[in-house]
Amino acid sequence: MPDFKVTKNPMKNNQTAISSDFFFIDRNSSLSLQVQLISLTVSIILEKNLKYGTRFPSTRVLAKYLNISRLTVSLAYQELVSQGYLVAIPKSGYAVAEDAPKKPLKSNLETANKVQVNWSDKLKPKLKNRRQIIKPNDWDQYPYPFIYGQMDKKLFNHTAWRECARQAFGAKDFSKVAGDWAAEDDAMLIDYICARTLPRRGIDAKPEEVLITMGAQNALWLAVNLLSCNCKQKALFEDPGYPDIVEMLRRSGMEAVATKVDEQGFNPDLIPLNTGLVSVTPSHHVPTGVTMPMARRKALIKKSEEDDFIIIEDDYEFERSFLAPASPSLKSMDNSGRIIYISSFSKSIFPGLRLGYMVAPEPFIKEARALRALILRHPPGHLQRITAYFLAQGYYDALIVKTRQRFKQRHEILVQSLDLHGIKIASGARHGGSSLWIEGPKNLDSSQLSKALRDDGVLIEAGKAFFENPQLPCSFFRLAYSSISTDKIPKGVSIIANHLGI
Amino acid sequence: MPDFKVTKNPMKNNQTAISSDFFFIDRNSSLSLQVQLISLTVSIILEKNLKYGTRFPSTRVLAKYLNISRLTVSLAYQELVSQGYLVAIPKSGYAVAEDAPKKPLKSNLETANKVQVNWSDKLKPKLKNRRQIIKPNDWDQYPYPFIYGQMDKKLFNHTAWRECARQAFGAKDFSKVAGDWAAEDDAMLIDYICARTLPRRGIDAKPEEVLITMGAQNALWLAVNLLSCNCKQKALFEDPGYPDIVEMLRRSGMEAVATKVDEQGFNPDLIPLNTGLVSVTPSHHVPTGVTMPMARRKALIKKSEEDDFIIIEDDYEFERSFLAPASPSLKSMDNSGRIIYISSFSKSIFPGLRLGYMVAPEPFIKEARALRALILRHPPGHLQRITAYFLAQGYYDALIVKTRQRFKQRHEILVQSLDLHGIKIASGARHGGSSLWIEGPKNLDSSQLSKALRDDGVLIEAGKAFFENPQLPCSFFRLAYSSISTDKIPKGVSIIANHLGI
Repeated sequence: MPDFKVTKNPMKNNQTAISSDFFFIDRNSSLSLQVQLISLTVSIILEKNLKYGTRFPSTRVLAKYLNISRLTVSLAYQELVSQGYLVAIPKSGYAVAEDAPKKPLKSNLETANKVQVNWSDKLKPKLKNRRQIIKPNDWDQYPYPFIYGQMDKKLFNHTAWRECARQAFGAKDFSKVAGDWAAEDDAMLIDYICARTLPRRGIDAKPEEVLITMGAQNALWLAVNLLSCNCKQKALFEDPGYPDIVEMLRRSGMEAVATKVDEQGFNPDLIPLNTGLVSVTPSHHVPTGVTMPMARRKALIKKSEEDDFIIIEDDYEFERSFLAPASPSLKSMDNSGRIIYISSFSKSIFPGLRLGYMVAPEPFIKEARALRALILRHPPGHLQRITAYFLAQGYYDALIVKTRQRFKQRHEILVQSLDLHGIKIASGARHGGSSLWIEGPKNLDSSQLSKALRDDGVLIEAGKAFFENPQLPCSFFRLAYSSISTDKIPKGVSIIANHLGI
Repeated sequence: MPDFKVTKNPMKNNQTAISSDFFFIDRNSSLSLQVQLISLTVSIILEKNLKYGTRFPSTRVLAKYLNISRLTVSLAYQELVSQGYLVAIPKSGYAVAEDAPKKPLKSNLETANKVQVNWSDKLKPKLKNRRQIIKPNDWDQYPYPFIYGQMDKKLFNHTAWRECARQAFGAKDFSKVAGDWAAEDDAMLIDYICARTLPRRGIDAKPEEVLITMGAQNALWLAVNLLSCNCKQKALFEDPGYPDIVEMLRRSGMEAVATKVDEQGFNPDLIPLNTGLVSVTPSHHVPTGVTMPMARRKALIKKSEEDDFIIIEDDYEFERSFLAPASPSLKSMDNSGRIIYISSFSKSIFPGLRLGYMVAPEPFIKEARALRALILRHPPGHLQRITAYFLAQGYYDALIVKTRQRFKQRHEILVQSLDLHGIKIASGARHGGSSLWIEGPKNLDSSQLSKALRDDGVLIEAGKAFFENPQLPCSFFRLAYSSISTDKIPKGVSIIANHLGI
């Protein structure tokens, strides 16, 4: 035990005692006072490289100084003792433990400003230059966010999710779910997808035909990467369409070919000879929201069999058909196993979840599983398990019903508001979705419009990023109603109308 | 309201009532009785496509039938009412709600056994045939698991993790963390890595120089993929070494070249002309556990500057140096910004977490971030936030200290036990780690040994998968002590000795 001198002014001798002055609390923080005290004490010990025996303020002194309860300080100190940072000295209070974690001295090398590598030589063709949908991360600070793909916290059953998380992080599940699954997935989640989710899309799949992915994005990437073995073939994408699939196809080495989309979505008559791969969004086309009619679906499948190409079906927003019953998926009509079906929980639960899945014939899933293992092993176990519980306990289905009802309302109000101001809806999205595709006046530059509207608190998505070769200026833009509350819609539209000079 | 007939035997008229017979509970399940009831009721409604108004057993009847409390049944029913599955009929009990979620009829197409695509033609070179470390998923059922990379639940502070999860899933954090971050990461986690973790490795990095990845695996893949722009150059890997990096390099299009590792790890003198990329594990070499001496580190860096190649440093198990202080990372000696530093939380926290990170010059991180966004957007927000709290509150450091102490004990016992039986440690792992690299008798086939030992409850890792061109039979194998408890080690080793005929 070191010799403890009780100093009247600890700052004079900070080798052996730490003053209360080092402590502060933030009453607006999301962290409890106890947790803040723990974090701060750990920081002080590590940052100051405190020696064994350095004393901390007594619970009484610190509680008084911070104007908090003495019990809070005491509990924080006790936690730090059990973690090995502090020791309790009988009758003397708390001090730094002998083998407390340490922060080593920093390297004295200055690494800043020393980049001597010519990275533009060393790196593959730049991704930075790809087409991108730009969305501000602080979208929820805007009063009129007609923005796609963010969460509506008013709709989400947060309590249910926490309860499912409590179960997945509980003692019985924890260590099993925390393990390295190599290339495997959570059997519980796969089972529920096969039993509950896929039958709604008319798909009857075995567990060996399903792979969990990091969102639909990851499934698209895996599928494109596996299928791009024949560089002499064409890979077709929708134009306008989702920009990331274009970038994936382009990087795959195949010849990426834009295919014009009309008011019925992707047109199978436009498929050229020597096509190896077609990527489509039949449920709700991105970005127009159009649903592909049955005749075209049948024609597309027929052609894929005749020409021996593979179809990637991104079953985008199937769960958001509130104006008409959802059409069956292409995959449900797949007689020859040439459709790679992709769907997402990130859109329907919340985007930061990053879980989606892929359904395809077993030989394909086997390879996709191996490729996924190579790039990231497996999606995190606990998230798979929480999602499985969320599905099993009916919260997912309830969320979809609720979302559909709410989106239907918003859709009505948005259509009415647009109509009132004479703003033209470009696509005939007749099944629902979460956005409308708008055509502005001929000479409108929607990118400029988007910038100007931001200053008035309105977020819209300019159309340019969705087109392969946009006519400039591009007069199209997307208005999503997935994150804006119903009562904000009329005012938001009137601001847009003002800017359009309507 | 439909007309409710109270039937004495509901099974005779299952259009309007569901009998208690459909219900069962599993008292061994990790789920609460209430949650089981909810799940089951949802299943019954969906699977049976129950009509609006179909009645459920009363709380009294069902509680009695299942021999559980009436309150449990009542709470389950109430939850289902709030989710929209059931309605409460005054004085009559509960029935299926009018707009309860429905399961559509299945497609009547039979998709089984219809695979008509020749997948071997359509898919890129097969991954299934790569070298692989095979580990049984039920490893924890074996009494003597000398197996690497699984969690030791006795060491992990489960309560602390749950507490951090409770915070990250709490009302204040939830919706922010649940959003689509596009290419971004959790600033809180990045800040802690920069402030707390990297300084221990002598690295002083700005937030713009750090990218969160899905484990070190994902960071390795991103780095290799970005750096493989020059197919005429050589990419060097350690032999023996981690098999997945070999597969990544091979698929990148560069010429992947095996480089023999000796008792000092990777040897910079063996680097051939026209090398573009070198991948190394200097802290603890995989699989031998050797730490690269300072002279070789300096020589490697000098050579990288002279020959203008890039180094991928997988800082494998730096936190597990318990026999000697950890050597500074290569990155801490990086004067020209040509080292891509990679580390993992999945190894030090738990493997199913799937979080790691990459540190590199800003232009490189920018591209890596864009590529990561293309293949998966971003690692899940809540996991990043839980980990940030786990770091901030000192649990991570405490875990590392505890792990080091425990592994030191196990290492001692394992070395003693091997010594006792005259089993030869092949590598001079003098800094710690979590495994020993063993050389069996000359004509030993360690793959055969591994199979035979399984039947006796012992798991070891055969050496073959680590070698590019293994001498066959391969007499090397790996004995990890990261998941086996100390008291099991002597007996486990004696069983191995028996099989070796020693």
